[in-house]
Amino acid sequence: MSDLDERRFWLDALKWDENGLIPAIAQDVATGRVLTLAWMSRESLLETVARGHAVYWSRSRRRLWEKGEESGHFQILKSIRTDCDGDALLLSVEQLGGIACHTGRERCFFR
Amino acid sequence: MSDLDERRFWLDALKWDENGLIPAIAQDVATGRVLTLAWMSRESLLETVARGHAVYWSRSRRRLWEKGEESGHFQILKSIRTDCDGDALLLSVEQLGGIACHTGRERCFFR
Repeated sequence: MSDLDERRFWLDALKWDENGLIPAIAQDVATGRVLTLAWMSRESLLETVARGHAVYWSRSRRRLWEKGEESGHFQILKSIRTDCDGDALLLSVEQLGGIACHTGRERCFFR
Repeated sequence: MSDLDERRFWLDALKWDENGLIPAIAQDVATGRVLTLAWMSRESLLETVARGHAVYWSRSRRRLWEKGEESGHFQILKSIRTDCDGDALLLSVEQLGGIACHTGRERCFFR
């Protein structure tokens, strides 16, 4: 298989929802804390792997959303797993700046 | 506010998707491992709080799904958080039997 074929095979093995998206959990590799739940399109997943940091699909802005693009708080990719039925992703990341949430908190799950 | 009003207020503060569901991450309170990503309806969230262990909405079977109902591997609820924009839940759980996945593995994210 070519690299492109391999990537297509991997992408096709995932279950994309009716909007072509899959939920992606980001977990801090150092602390184990769950930082964010965001969404990925096929393109954003390919970009995440290519750039080595998380690139999501923003459902509100309807465009690719490079996590940290404004703040510099990139999520450096350490590993990606999928679950038993292939309908969710788990990213292990190094959270630059220690801040994952746009509210300035360490993580989005604070309430 | 009555208890019922309080619960309604809390439920209404969450963002439910077009199918009336919200994604719920279960994380092992002891190991910090992310075990599962499943979905909750309003009813399943109320049942989770009432019973003290995770009750999800099975999208494939289109019914309430008490995690562990067949295996006895209940996810005992320790805490529930929501994220900054209220469109995801994070459950901290004690995973009975140490097995969260129907494949017999400790967690669903093994691939």
